[in-house]
Amino acid sequence: MPDFQAILEAIYQDTINVSDKGTIASYIPELAHIDKGNFGIHLRTSDGKSYGVGDYKKPFSTQSISKVLALSKAMALIGESTWERVGVEPSGHPFNQLALLEIEHGIPRNPLINSGAIVIADILVSNLKNPKEDFLKYVRELTGDVTISFNKDVAHSEKITGFKNYAAANLLKSFKNLNNLVEDVLDFYFHLCSLEMTCSQLSNAFYLFANNGKCLRNKLHINDKQVKRINALMLTCGFYDEAGEFAFEVGLPGKSGVGGGIVALLPDHFVITTWAPGLNKKGNSKLGMLALEQFTTKAKLSVF
Amino acid sequence: MPDFQAILEAIYQDTINVSDKGTIASYIPELAHIDKGNFGIHLRTSDGKSYGVGDYKKPFSTQSISKVLALSKAMALIGESTWERVGVEPSGHPFNQLALLEIEHGIPRNPLINSGAIVIADILVSNLKNPKEDFLKYVRELTGDVTISFNKDVAHSEKITGFKNYAAANLLKSFKNLNNLVEDVLDFYFHLCSLEMTCSQLSNAFYLFANNGKCLRNKLHINDKQVKRINALMLTCGFYDEAGEFAFEVGLPGKSGVGGGIVALLPDHFVITTWAPGLNKKGNSKLGMLALEQFTTKAKLSVF
Amino acid sequence: MPDFQAILEAIYQDTINVSDKGTIASYIPELAHIDKGNFGIHLRTSDGKSYGVGDYKKPFSTQSISKVLALSKAMALIGESTWERVGVEPSGHPFNQLALLEIEHGIPRNPLINSGAIVIADILVSNLKNPKEDFLKYVRELTGDVTISFNKDVAHSEKITGFKNYAAANLLKSFKNLNNLVEDVLDFYFHLCSLEMTCSQLSNAFYLFANNGKCLRNKLHINDKQVKRINALMLTCGFYDEAGEFAFEVGLPGKSGVGGGIVALLPDHFVITTWAPGLNKKGNSKLGMLALEQFTTKAKLSVF
Amino acid sequence: MPDFQAILEAIYQDTINVSDKGTIASYIPELAHIDKGNFGIHLRTSDGKSYGVGDYKKPFSTQSISKVLALSKAMALIGESTWERVGVEPSGHPFNQLALLEIEHGIPRNPLINSGAIVIADILVSNLKNPKEDFLKYVRELTGDVTISFNKDVAHSEKITGFKNYAAANLLKSFKNLNNLVEDVLDFYFHLCSLEMTCSQLSNAFYLFANNGKCLRNKLHINDKQVKRINALMLTCGFYDEAGEFAFEVGLPGKSGVGGGIVALLPDHFVITTWAPGLNKKGNSKLGMLALEQFTTKAKLSVF
Repeated sequence: MPDFQAILEAIYQDTINVSDKGTIASYIPELAHIDKGNFGIHLRTSDGKSYGVGDYKKPFSTQSISKVLALSKAMALIGESTWERVGVEPSGHPFNQLALLEIEHGIPRNPLINSGAIVIADILVSNLKNPKEDFLKYVRELTGDVTISFNKDVAHSEKITGFKNYAAANLLKSFKNLNNLVEDVLDFYFHLCSLEMTCSQLSNAFYLFANNGKCLRNKLHINDKQVKRINALMLTCGFYDEAGEFAFEVGLPGKSGVGGGIVALLPDHFVITTWAPGLNKKGNSKLGMLALEQFTTKAKLSVF
Repeated sequence: MPDFQAILEAIYQDTINVSDKGTIASYIPELAHIDKGNFGIHLRTSDGKSYGVGDYKKPFSTQSISKVLALSKAMALIGESTWERVGVEPSGHPFNQLALLEIEHGIPRNPLINSGAIVIADILVSNLKNPKEDFLKYVRELTGDVTISFNKDVAHSEKITGFKNYAAANLLKSFKNLNNLVEDVLDFYFHLCSLEMTCSQLSNAFYLFANNGKCLRNKLHINDKQVKRINALMLTCGFYDEAGEFAFEVGLPGKSGVGGGIVALLPDHFVITTWAPGLNKKGNSKLGMLALEQFTTKAKLSVF
Repeated sequence: MPDFQAILEAIYQDTINVSDKGTIASYIPELAHIDKGNFGIHLRTSDGKSYGVGDYKKPFSTQSISKVLALSKAMALIGESTWERVGVEPSGHPFNQLALLEIEHGIPRNPLINSGAIVIADILVSNLKNPKEDFLKYVRELTGDVTISFNKDVAHSEKITGFKNYAAANLLKSFKNLNNLVEDVLDFYFHLCSLEMTCSQLSNAFYLFANNGKCLRNKLHINDKQVKRINALMLTCGFYDEAGEFAFEVGLPGKSGVGGGIVALLPDHFVITTWAPGLNKKGNSKLGMLALEQFTTKAKLSVF
Repeated sequence: MPDFQAILEAIYQDTINVSDKGTIASYIPELAHIDKGNFGIHLRTSDGKSYGVGDYKKPFSTQSISKVLALSKAMALIGESTWERVGVEPSGHPFNQLALLEIEHGIPRNPLINSGAIVIADILVSNLKNPKEDFLKYVRELTGDVTISFNKDVAHSEKITGFKNYAAANLLKSFKNLNNLVEDVLDFYFHLCSLEMTCSQLSNAFYLFANNGKCLRNKLHINDKQVKRINALMLTCGFYDEAGEFAFEVGLPGKSGVGGGIVALLPDHFVITTWAPGLNKKGNSKLGMLALEQFTTKAKLSVF
């Protein structure tokens, strides 16, 4: 077993001084004002150990990372029916997502692009009594941490700038692939985006995907096959238009968010979460990508 | 001068008994319940004469025809600035209008497709004190007829089924090509669609486009160049994906609506309006197209 | 009757000194080396008179203008069957013509875009014994001028740079909308592009479209309905992505070529041809557009 | 260590009697005439052992599988420069590959789709003295088997039906992303497609991708990083529009061909090859997919 704490510290030292730390997401003030100097890494291994370095206890906006948690909840609730409403294949380049949705008659390519996650949000709105509260309860249960919450300001900012998401939701509605009101689904969706978590909380929440569907407290939430599906989706669709690059550089299933977080995992081995708010041109955390590449190289643990 | 009344009556007789009258638009109940047997034609010549046959005094839903009136008002208000926000070229096929809008960065191809008319609606919302009242006033002034009005039920039905228009408006907004709130612009837009007029009212309203910008009462609303622009747009973009076919069959600038109306005109000569609610596969009035083709053939009056 | 010679001369004087004469097409050396100072206008009226100014007797590369002549020959040969293989609607913007062809399963939008003209070329290769000779014979007959010929160097240059046309022809072939060998069709197509004519020869050749299908020598080549179809196509699709603009500026059916020529016509009245090799951004002759706009304004003869 | 021979035999028995064996590729006679009853599996482990069942010694048309071998040779020859001409990201759905190529200015999304493989073929034509012979030599060296060869009839049939590939190659040429003559590149490309190999030969040829770039005879052909890149590409782009599904069902980097072959591998563990010519709707071998899914489940060896 490698000395993980030493590895994380070495990576942190190597990476923290990189001069080009990328660009902060600036479409909403809550993200635009984050300090680019933040950098944290947290690792949880399947044997229950936990390692951290830097700002791994500082909460940040999970953004698209929460799409994976939403997906897992939807699959737990309605199982294979999920795939009647959303596909499982990579979507290619991002500039024409609405075009793709039009051509494919309202079935999003996969649940990790925005239009797909809006369909997942619709499923949760239909199947949870109090969608926001119940989803939060789910995440708190996964992590054993009742402090996790939405950031109302972020949710509000997402809403008032989220015209492309409104366009996508209305287009889905026109194809009858949205059962609830656009406003209700997007309200839930924007709250999902606003979920705030630390690196260690994210490692803990994603633990079930590295542990056959059982969360940290050993409760089974989804079955083996569903875990496999989610990991396959993260591997092929988890990084916007950089899924191929991430598969190469890091070689793990994972998901990034424009808040600068990345969660990646190796089944039966570990979950690792990084946070550094500066993004590369494709919208993925610059230092995070570097750190994860180094980790899989140094720890000799990747799918390849 | 041909005997226009006789020509209209001959066309009416020839056309009314066509067995396949096309299909009624069924996306909202107010259109779905219209009797397919309705058929009217009205002609107004530039020398002030007026001819009618069939249901030419019965009001119907103008739908997209009102886009031309809205455009003329926008041009009267802001002139050439209109073209900074919308193009003047045909758009090709209709199934991927949002795709096109995405590729062209939020500048609709022309003001007679939905996304373009939404931009025009936005211009009117910005430049009219009471958009709905003022627009109605404009149409009433053009026609000298104060009975013309919106149909609130139609406007409401358009609104609750208009997800594609909501998608387009939000996409425009995401490209910063919508200055007002989506709700406000679409409320006005859906009212435009719901405008109810008779064949003779439409001929009268469109009289200015055949008369160098002067309405029936000889008031100048738009200049020569603006008239030319509007007629060129109708000729190349006025019939969804059947502009080329209409240019061939009829050879006049014109505009159709899914309510079954068509207005066409020959500058300095006449405006002719038909109404028959059954539509062909491309969404244009079946009997209307037939009647107009016969008219230009019999009257030997087309642009070709 | 206006004094046409005086009008042409006035236009010539007004236009020839415009400082920005546009950009010469540079994709083949034969076009790249043309002097931008060339400028000619020729008018033929339906009563048989002829007027010219500037370089109207100098031959130039007709390029896409010859697509109209090819179309008329194909329609003469196979009539309405033409429309089983090519559409009659405008195509929207040009950058994704292959995309459009793919989406529409190998049926080009209209016969005046490249892919459509390649289908027309295929029809002629199938229906003429010696396609190149027979087509030339047709043009010579229309004009009564046996000196008209292809430019072999231009045809060769088109061929060795024509990769997009090869791509289009092969895509058509994959959709089974090309009956002959790609090489044979494109050899004919590239020769069509290379046809050299003067302004006056072009006015004469297009005379049949302004004269109900009868050529200068009064021979009927195509019928009334076919003339109407061709004029409708020129009006809606004759100017690449500037059809709407041309309909507005000039208001006549017409066709331009990257060699700098434009032919336009008013049925029963006249054919006018301009040549000035400098092109605007959309690929149409800059001085030609200006001249034609002035002509319809001064002569008060347009479809609007 | 599992008893691999027993596992393969169990899978073979389970799978061979599936009643719906899919559809044989029928676009060329050489594939159309293959017996759907063929079925073989071959496994080579990293410790040098070899296991086979069914028709694993029968040669079949490798088709797209050879794209991976071509890519590895190109990377060996020009290294990172490869990525100046072709991308590394999944391409989304297949019906509009030319559209995508147009939008992305002639840079194919990845080297495993046809347009990307044509670019790779161009690189090999530029960098090998005798492309066909030299490529064959490479494959023979990888496998230690001099009997491997192209099937001239298949290459010829590919050529005379390959209009979409001609379209793609010409489009690449128009974007200056093809340095050699279209004919020369496609001649080589069609020969690549026609490469005939058995399951065991394929397992042996792909051995270097599971063994850090060293072939069976321990010669280093490509470095670690290049192996990682190729495996990442297979994982995200190896199965047409079923990459996500394959990642889920099988969870291994792999590549399929319309000849019915699939090669998949787990780095440092094994290469497995299946052949069953019946294809599912997405063009991947039906029995092959089933067999590989069972294998990773039974052997508990996948990336997840």
